[in-house]
Amino acid sequence: MKTRAAVAWKAGAPLTIETVELAGPKAGEVLVEIKATGLCHTDEFTRSGADPEGIFPAILGHEGAGVVVDVGPGVTTLKKGDHVIPLYTPECRQCKSCLSRKTNLCTAIRATQGKGLMPDGSSRFSLDGQPIYHYMGCSTFANHTVLPEIALAKIREDAPFDKVCYIGCGVTTGIGAVINTAKVEAGANVVVFGLGGIGLNVIQGARMVGANKIVGVDLNPGRRAMAEKFGMTHFVNPKEVEGDLVAHLVALTDGGADYSFECIGNVDVMRQALECCHRGWGVSVIIGVAGSGQEIKTRPFQLVTGRTWKGTAFGGARGRTDVPKIVDWYMDGKISIDPLITHTLKLEDINKGFDLMHAGESIRAVVVF
Amino acid sequence: MKTRAAVAWKAGAPLTIETVELAGPKAGEVLVEIKATGLCHTDEFTRSGADPEGIFPAILGHEGAGVVVDVGPGVTTLKKGDHVIPLYTPECRQCKSCLSRKTNLCTAIRATQGKGLMPDGSSRFSLDGQPIYHYMGCSTFANHTVLPEIALAKIREDAPFDKVCYIGCGVTTGIGAVINTAKVEAGANVVVFGLGGIGLNVIQGARMVGANKIVGVDLNPGRRAMAEKFGMTHFVNPKEVEGDLVAHLVALTDGGADYSFECIGNVDVMRQALECCHRGWGVSVIIGVAGSGQEIKTRPFQLVTGRTWKGTAFGGARGRTDVPKIVDWYMDGKISIDPLITHTLKLEDINKGFDLMHAGESIRAVVVF
Repeated sequence: MKTRAAVAWKAGAPLTIETVELAGPKAGEVLVEIKATGLCHTDEFTRSGADPEGIFPAILGHEGAGVVVDVGPGVTTLKKGDHVIPLYTPECRQCKSCLSRKTNLCTAIRATQGKGLMPDGSSRFSLDGQPIYHYMGCSTFANHTVLPEIALAKIREDAPFDKVCYIGCGVTTGIGAVINTAKVEAGANVVVFGLGGIGLNVIQGARMVGANKIVGVDLNPGRRAMAEKFGMTHFVNPKEVEGDLVAHLVALTDGGADYSFECIGNVDVMRQALECCHRGWGVSVIIGVAGSGQEIKTRPFQLVTGRTWKGTAFGGARGRTDVPKIVDWYMDGKISIDPLITHTLKLEDINKGFDLMHAGESIRAVVVF
Repeated sequence: MKTRAAVAWKAGAPLTIETVELAGPKAGEVLVEIKATGLCHTDEFTRSGADPEGIFPAILGHEGAGVVVDVGPGVTTLKKGDHVIPLYTPECRQCKSCLSRKTNLCTAIRATQGKGLMPDGSSRFSLDGQPIYHYMGCSTFANHTVLPEIALAKIREDAPFDKVCYIGCGVTTGIGAVINTAKVEAGANVVVFGLGGIGLNVIQGARMVGANKIVGVDLNPGRRAMAEKFGMTHFVNPKEVEGDLVAHLVALTDGGADYSFECIGNVDVMRQALECCHRGWGVSVIIGVAGSGQEIKTRPFQLVTGRTWKGTAFGGARGRTDVPKIVDWYMDGKISIDPLITHTLKLEDINKGFDLMHAGESIRAVVVF
């Protein structure tokens, strides 16, 4: 079949809208009509050429929501008409990782996904006979895409696509980091570095589980109002702190953060996030993606005196199991998404979405098909 | 009263045996006759001058066992004749740290202990009117010493002093890192870097909790036999590995260590210990003390893909609660100590103990009074 898609032909170039060829689902695969997709920094990381593992030409996008149009042979858990969210972290429930009960990082299709291919080693997308690669196993910048059954979360049918698409990455990453990775408990003091889309979701996750102080740290005072709406109790602008930021945060949190979250991707901030944690038990979680080759550093004394350094991908969430729950939380009003979707665009205007991201004007721009 | 002690007069100098003046126990304090004390690398770290926080003159030693001789006013949990192990990490059971249930790093007397003083801000030791400082709140290189009640673990009376003194630091640090900090579970694969006194205790801790593969890594093949006796299942000499040590360890542990332990104090090894951990859930615990100012480094990707970096002090053990249990485990034959006590010395020969340590001939040398 033919479908419309924004294609990244080469690193650094704007996306161009094309009508591409999409082969039907093979065994264990599902054809999905994408109804809406968010634009995430990770898409831009690859589009810009900063991602050393970027593959071109590709159809980017990994934060979508849509409807099942067709299923390939052997697919048993999904049928035509089901509403779904694509998962860049699949959940096969059979690999060593899934069975470990300790991680969400399913390895069933990792090798081919990293090469921009479906599990059988081929691509479903092409144009004039030239293969176009998949991206993060999702390629939600296409109006139709094919995914493995294990990479789709089935969600309730009354959830609006243009909002819950954000659960495909940002919402789950932020809230999941709080509940799955850090396991923040009621009464804990939390410090969040970076009040963008991820940081705001960390904040509302911390509020949801009953955190005490929720300190937001950002150089941009414009982030304050929205962050307070999501549950931030204290705002710290590093530019306005006299002296050492870490010491200031330790004082503000009565000895240090019980949990801190780095939502920027800056290795120096990652160090601050660790070192502002409470002696004895503070846990710092890295969410942001650092530039290629960059390293984090600290004195081992920080760890020997009881701090823990962790990281998280997709918020530690098992996609098929946890994503439908987060959709429920949204529909039940336990979490908020609507104010975070600051811009809605047509596919033709997708490059404007990246411009808004760079200008810091959007929290999340969503393309609606 | 007067007692004999090995005094460190200045950084880098050998200890000298002196008859020093010891003031009696004040309120909340206990006078202990030390019967035996181990010589630990931490004592040597301070004696040598490498410890930037070293204070002189001082009576070093923090790994002892003895008998209560007298108690000061208000002491309720100990009486004359009780057998005890001094605790450089006290357990007051009332401070924020003790009440957190998350750490063993009691802060009740931290400020004064770090200055070589008793909680009231003074020293009990002197010679010719010159105060001599306490060390790590213990000073077990004296035949008699004074400690706060909260810094003494009461132990069973049939336990031999010249063996269980080692539980005052090395044994508890190694076994505690396994059971309290890492919480190793049965069937886990474990990698231990450094097969000295701490590493061997990590190994027997891992065996005790039912670990599967227990891989020991050391440049010294002479460590192999003893480590195997303590439960090591695989020995790796980095000098004999072709190619990358981390890749070798990952292959040997079927994808990476579930838990790794750094028992050396080398920041480059700390990085290897983290990076040989299994993607998704591997936990690396730093036990070794690095040189002052040194830093650990890694790419944040290591953490984002599910590895956790932790540290431990005194094996995460709450001294008064956990040390008596470990003494029981020794007396019940669940753990072994005797082969680790390779040398027994008189106080007069204490400097020989440090020579043996430097020569790599001893695992633990113990001074018996």
